[in-house]
Order: sequence, then structure tokens, then C-alpha cells
Amino acid sequence: MNERIKCEKYLSKVMTADEAAKLIYPGATIGLSGFTPAGHAKAVPLAIAKRAEETGEKLDLTIMTGASVGDQIDGALTRAGAMKKRLPYQTNSTVRNAINAGEIEYFDMHLSQLAVWAKNGFFGDIDFAIVEVSGIDEDGHIIPSTSIGAANTYIDCAKKVILEVNTTQPLSLKGIHDVYTVERVPNSKPIPIVRAADRIGTEYYPCDFDKIAAIVMTDIPDKGRAVQPVDDISQKIADNIVELITKETEAGRLPVPLPPLQSGVGGVANAVLAGLKKSSFTNLNVYSEVLQDAVFDLIDAGKIAFASGTSLTISPDFQEHYDKNFEKYKDKIMLRPQEISNHPEVIRRLGIIAMNTAIEVDIYGNTNSSHINGTRIMNGIGGSGDFAQNAGLSIFMTPSTAKNGTLSCIVPFVTHVDHTEHDIHFLVTEYGYADLRGLPPRIRARKIIEVCAHPDFRPQLLDYLERSCMECECKQTPQLLREVFADK
Amino acid sequence: MNERIKCEKYLSKVMTADEAAKLIYPGATIGLSGFTPAGHAKAVPLAIAKRAEETGEKLDLTIMTGASVGDQIDGALTRAGAMKKRLPYQTNSTVRNAINAGEIEYFDMHLSQLAVWAKNGFFGDIDFAIVEVSGIDEDGHIIPSTSIGAANTYIDCAKKVILEVNTTQPLSLKGIHDVYTVERVPNSKPIPIVRAADRIGTEYYPCDFDKIAAIVMTDIPDKGRAVQPVDDISQKIADNIVELITKETEAGRLPVPLPPLQSGVGGVANAVLAGLKKSSFTNLNVYSEVLQDAVFDLIDAGKIAFASGTSLTISPDFQEHYDKNFEKYKDKIMLRPQEISNHPEVIRRLGIIAMNTAIEVDIYGNTNSSHINGTRIMNGIGGSGDFAQNAGLSIFMTPSTAKNGTLSCIVPFVTHVDHTEHDIHFLVTEYGYADLRGLPPRIRARKIIEVCAHPDFRPQLLDYLERSCMECECKQTPQLLREVFADK
Repeated sequence: MNERIKCEKYLSKVMTADEAAKLIYPGATIGLSGFTPAGHAKAVPLAIAKRAEETGEKLDLTIMTGASVGDQIDGALTRAGAMKKRLPYQTNSTVRNAINAGEIEYFDMHLSQLAVWAKNGFFGDIDFAIVEVSGIDEDGHIIPSTSIGAANTYIDCAKKVILEVNTTQPLSLKGIHDVYTVERVPNSKPIPIVRAADRIGTEYYPCDFDKIAAIVMTDIPDKGRAVQPVDDISQKIADNIVELITKETEAGRLPVPLPPLQSGVGGVANAVLAGLKKSSFTNLNVYSEVLQDAVFDLIDAGKIAFASGTSLTISPDFQEHYDKNFEKYKDKIMLRPQEISNHPEVIRRLGIIAMNTAIEVDIYGNTNSSHINGTRIMNGIGGSGDFAQNAGLSIFMTPSTAKNGTLSCIVPFVTHVDHTEHDIHFLVTEYGYADLRGLPPRIRARKIIEVCAHPDFRPQLLDYLERSCMECECKQTPQLLREVFADK
Repeated sequence: MNERIKCEKYLSKVMTADEAAKLIYPGATIGLSGFTPAGHAKAVPLAIAKRAEETGEKLDLTIMTGASVGDQIDGALTRAGAMKKRLPYQTNSTVRNAINAGEIEYFDMHLSQLAVWAKNGFFGDIDFAIVEVSGIDEDGHIIPSTSIGAANTYIDCAKKVILEVNTTQPLSLKGIHDVYTVERVPNSKPIPIVRAADRIGTEYYPCDFDKIAAIVMTDIPDKGRAVQPVDDISQKIADNIVELITKETEAGRLPVPLPPLQSGVGGVANAVLAGLKKSSFTNLNVYSEVLQDAVFDLIDAGKIAFASGTSLTISPDFQEHYDKNFEKYKDKIMLRPQEISNHPEVIRRLGIIAMNTAIEVDIYGNTNSSHINGTRIMNGIGGSGDFAQNAGLSIFMTPSTAKNGTLSCIVPFVTHVDHTEHDIHFLVTEYGYADLRGLPPRIRARKIIEVCAHPDFRPQLLDYLERSCMECECKQTPQLLREVFADK
């Protein structure tokens, strides 16, 4: 234990997860560490779930995290019936099903807003912070683990703090974190980041010792998700993105070296990074949420100068290589609070190239990234709005069809709007990229249909557009609204 | 003339408006000064319209401004058939009708994005800047008039600059401007504003002398619009807003003195400011787009410490009082470029209280602020997105009904989305205010209906919600999409 808790006075706070779980009272609001299944609290939430199951108590907890977390939180607490409310983002099927069944209240919000809302009291009192850390050093500094997310804010705002010291997280993580908190209005100052690599905070979570109610030792590992192999459609989307970025630089509308890249998680994101690996671009920077395998692959290739995120997820296949080379990666990566990784101020200043995935996009460029058929929530808006609204170049991408080609992802009117026509510059599918900048709606509609829609669906979409332009008295944004949801 | 052009070398550039108008070539892209009918170029656009009418030339101009401008631009150039394309915002009925008739291409965009798009070349070449100024001083400094808008950017980006020296604009305007331009990526730096009153730039437009192609003298005055008297409904909305702000301060969620206020133009905005005049709040600040009569009324009352905007519009009734007291106002106001007045970085940092008007709002909090029936564009999104997305408190307001009470402004699904459910904190009508923060969609829907909808429409909206919750398999955002536009 001493290897992880090197400041003696902290040892007095150590207890078991079951003991720590007993501190939680019904109705509590809990802020937990964790962002995109990395660095989330594990042992204590499992113990809370066990307690709820064993005692049958109705805990009615409000569970706040950075973003998505592992089954130890969303799965276990849902199955135990201990969760009343969840925010700001999730990807776990157990909690998602409970949300869509109306059993759990879910509030889906911009990830950049979470910290300021918490500090301003918009969520009411935060009773507990439960935060995974990799250790406590000789100076009593609390070293984060594989994500920061909103953990720094929860530690600041919560009445009591429970730390989980995770012995499976390497001690070598020390030094990659940059913890910085924006002060509340009227004391907030400019965030002094002008390069992705700028260090502005501390390597540890500042925390009042007296607020620490428990320290729990655990060895439950992070579980990195396997990276999906890149399929043909993702590859074509990625190729189109690399091509449009290249053309923008040739036209002088994007500087070289490129502004920092933001990309989501998954196949297309990996394919884009793989495409950049083959391109002539060098000295790349990443300013994003999640750092995944592909980022390290690009560091290996000498392509990435620096990568800033709020979470670090390595797939099982890549783990051994990553561990072996960590010292090489260490001075090229940084984890920040999501308040900073997603802050509009920094995103605008750096002119970030944002790449976000849509569920469906309409012919006018409005994007649905959260609800199937307008009613079934999948994950949430996450950071996509933070980046799309403020990016120097805002790219949305989607395969042209879903459900084995039977549904068009380009539709006359999206069933739910997460991003409006005002926040998209390029739409990309496997068929091409449509530059929407400066185009009035009826012209962008034609372009989206002719460039991005699947050829099988182009005739009916063009027919809709042409009839709209003909029959609708107003030609700015022609619509035949009575038709758009007629088959729903 | 010497009283206005005090640096001799500039005198050589003076010519008539007709002569300057001849410099314009077909297909040109022109960036003009002007924001909310103030400080817009007048003589040269009128002369361009006259030229087009007299010669029958097809000029096909792209007309870019700060925001809305006077009839000398939007009316005259539309009637002359000289305008092919218009952006980023308009309120003139002549151009609006031409846009909705499909005769003019209109691109509606966030006002904060205009400058960065121009600098990055997203609009292509900008051939001319036509900018109204109040004079040129001994040092050759070009002093803006009653607005800045995007004029500084157009001067920077255009190949040629045409200045209109307007002798009806008081010379005393010198000193109220703060011209600051954000550098292009990768050279952009933090914008060093931490208080509404912070001065960060110059009192004049920097401009390369050799780029000036013409200087035109004019005496066409700005035409301030009459301020609508506050009707009963606006008064109730304003009272509700003042009440909710008061409650937020009492709960500690808003600091005192209040963060700076942003408010739109018109009756409710004036009523809110009048309400604050009667309240116990003091030391108020404004960080907004347009400074109108009510701001000066509050300065008279000793309530406003400082007001920052990008435009200054005084109604005819108030003009005499304003002129008489200008020296008193002068050190309490500042005009900035719209890139700064609307910048997300500053809006977030200052924690601004944003008050924006909606055309219709749906029960889930999505807002339409631009399109009647989803197809007829009114003005545009303007700065509402810049403020709503980044405000410390984002308030949307609308009367509960339109068309003499025959239409509900609260609907199941808005016909056009300009602001998503993610960017609204409070919805206010004359019936009350709904605090939507943290509420899952189905619960916010009930609240909006019960608190904000007109009582005559509550039963049918509740019926829709209840049937949606019952019939829809997914309870997160229940919808019966087939119904929502059935009567359109």
C-alpha cells in the first residue's frame, strides 16, 4: 500500500469499498470520475450496488460522470435499482435501456457545460465525489489515472470525497495530467492555451484533506474496448475527409501545419488518422476528448507533435505495445479536465478541425446525433456540440445509408436536431463531401443530395426537393412538412 | 470638409458617390459597415443602385454587412436588381421578400463567425469594403461612426476600401470605439477582456492608405427606429425575467452584481431593462450587440456601470435627450467589432445573462427563431446562437400565442430549429418561467406546457404529451411524429 499512498496521513482514511459504500445516503448526488470507459471509479460503485441489492434500500442516486463509464457504474447501479438520475452522457446498454424505458431520468448536455453548471449550483448540492486515482505522492498530491473528465470539479464541489487508488494503473501516469479549473464568474480569466501542448495547471488534483471521507484500494482494471476494423465505407469516408482537408490547405483556407484535430471514437476516426499517416502532413496536433490507439500509432510514425485529451483508452490488442513504449509517448500527450478539452474558448482559438458522426442529416444540414427515430436516445450529444459550434472547420460524417442500405441517412427533415444548419461546414459520406459554407438552404440541399446521398435514394430526395421548391410559396427553405414524417 | 478629414493626404481620394460607384465591377463581393440600422454605408450603395437602374447592367453583387442595415443598402440594391447574394442577417422587408421569392440567395449565419470566415477565405475574395466613418483625424486615423459590426474585418480583407465620411455623425463619437481583431490561426491569442469595460484595441480602424480607393462625403443620417411601446404581454414577460434573475441570485446561482446582460432589440428587451431600473440591482453591465434608448435611461438612473455593444441606435424621440447628455454617457459605453461583442470566449468568461426571442418553442425546448412555418425566413439567427450557446444563463422568451391568440407559440415540434434543447436554461412567456436545467425531456415538456403555454392550448398539448408517453415505446423523448406537422 505504501507504494501508492506515500503521504502517511492519508493512510488513516483507508477503508474497504463496502465500508465506503455505507457512507452514501439515499437521495445523494454523486460525481464520479470517468470518461469514455477510462479512469472511472469501479470498486465503490460496485459496493454501492451490492449494498442496494442486499438491503433492498431505495437509494435514488443522481449519478454524474465525465462522460461514458464502465459497467461497474452504469450497469451495476442500474441493475441494483439504485440510480434515479443520470447525466451527462452514457454508452452502456443497460442504463440506456432503462433510460428509454423511462425508469431512469437522463439529462443529455454539452460536456463543456458540466463543470460550470456544477460550480454555479445548477445541479444542486453534490454530496460525494468518487474519483479513481493512481496514487498519492509524498507531498499528498493526488495523481489522476487514465482520465480526468469532470473529476477535478466534483472534488472541488462535493461535500465529501472518496478516492479509489487503482493499483492496476501504472505509476508512470504521473506527469501527463494538467489540472486547471476555470474560476467562477466574475473571477474567470482567459485560459492561457495557445498550443495543444501548453501546460497551464497542476499534475495532481488539488483537494482539501479534511473533505476526504474514504480511500479505497482496488485492482479492477480499465477495460479498453477493441478497435473495430475499418470497413470499406469508413475507409471511403476517411479518404474523403483527408482529400477535403488537403484541398482546403491548397486553397489557403487552412494553415499548414494543420490546426489540431478533434475526432470522435471508432472506425472512421481511426481510418482518418490512418489516412493522415499516409499523407504528406506532418507536425500534427490533436486537441480532442479521447486518445486512442491510432494516436499512438501516429506518434510511432513521427507524425504527431502533441496530443491533448481528457481520456486515454487503449484497446487490448494494442496494450502491450503501448506499455512498452509509454516513456516515448509520455512527453507527447496530456490529459486535461473536460472543461478545458471541450472549452469553446480554446476550440475557437486553436481553429480545430472537428470531425463528428451523425445518425442522420437532413438536406438542409441539420444533424441528429442522439435519437433513433427522434425518440430512442442512443448516447447523447457529448462533446460534439462543443466542437462543431466552435471549430475552425466543422465536419460531420455519416454512411449514406443504415440498416443494410434500406434506410437513407440523408432525409428531408431530421427526427431530432442536435446540431443546426449553422454549425456544419462539410458533410461527408462514402460518396463524397459537400462544402456547405455560404450556400442558401435550397442550394445546399441539392448539393447534399447529389454529392452525399446514396444513389438509390437520390431520385426520391430530389423529387422531394423539387416539389418543395415548386409547391412552397417561400423558396428560402422550401419544405413540404406534411410529408416529412408521414411514414413515422 | 477639413473639419472631417484632418489629414491632408486623404483629401486626394475624395470623389462623389457616383464616381465611387463606378469602381464596382459586376460579380463583386462587397463588405459594408452597418449593424442594426446604424453606421451603415449609405451614399455609395444608393449610387450603385442608381447606376444599375440607369445602365441596366447586371451587377450580381454579393452584399455582406455586419447585421441588418438600412433601406439604402437592402431596399435600394434589391429594387435595382443589383444584389445576387446577401449575408449574414437582414430585417428589411424588401430584401426579405426577394429572398423568400428565391430571387436573392441568402446565407444566414452566426454573427460571431463572420469575421473568422472572411479572414479564412470562406467567402472567397472580398473585392470592396464600403465603410461609414465619422472622420479622419490629424494622424490619418479613421474614426468609426455608430456601429462597427464587421467593418474592421472588411477593411482588413478587402482589396479596395471606400470610405463614406458622414457629416451627420457627431465628431464626439471619437473615443467610444475599441477596434480589435483576432489574428488568424495559428496566431490567435486570448482576447484579454475580463470586464465589459476593458479596452483592448484602438479607437480607429487601422487601414493601409494605398488600399483606399475613394472617400465620399455624405450627410444622409442614420434613421433610428421608434421604440415600440411596451404592451401588457411584454411587460409580463419582462416581470417574469426580472423575477427569475432575482431568484437565481437569492439561490447563489448568479453573483451580485449581476454578470453582464445581453438583450435583443424591441419591446420586451426594453421592458426588462425598465424592470431592472425599478429593481434593487445596481452596478449593472451590458455586454450585447445593440445599445438602445433603455440603456441610456438606465445610465441616467445610475444603474449601469458600463455598456459594451457593436452598434448604437437611438430612437427619434430620444435623440434630443441623448445628444444633450452624450458627454455623460461617453465614458460608460464602448463599441466593439461583432467578432468581439459576440465572441463565445468572452461570453462564457463573463457569464452573460442572455435574453433571446423565439418565434416558436417546442415542448422539449428546441427553438425556432428564424422561419415562419419552417419555410419563410424572417430575419435570421443573428447573434442569438452566439449568446445562447455560451451564456452563463440562457433565457428564451416568447409570447405564449401569436396571430391574436389563435396560434400557440408552444408546439409539439418546431418547424425549424435554430437553437437546440441543449442551449436553453429558462423559457419565459407572459404566464411564467420554466427552469429547464437538468430535466429529462418528458419532464421539461410537462413543465413548459403547465407553466408557459397559454391556458387555452394546455389541454391539447398535454393530450399530445400524454399520448406520446403512452404510445411511444421510448420514454426519453416521446413523440408521435406522424402528427406533429399533420396540419401544415
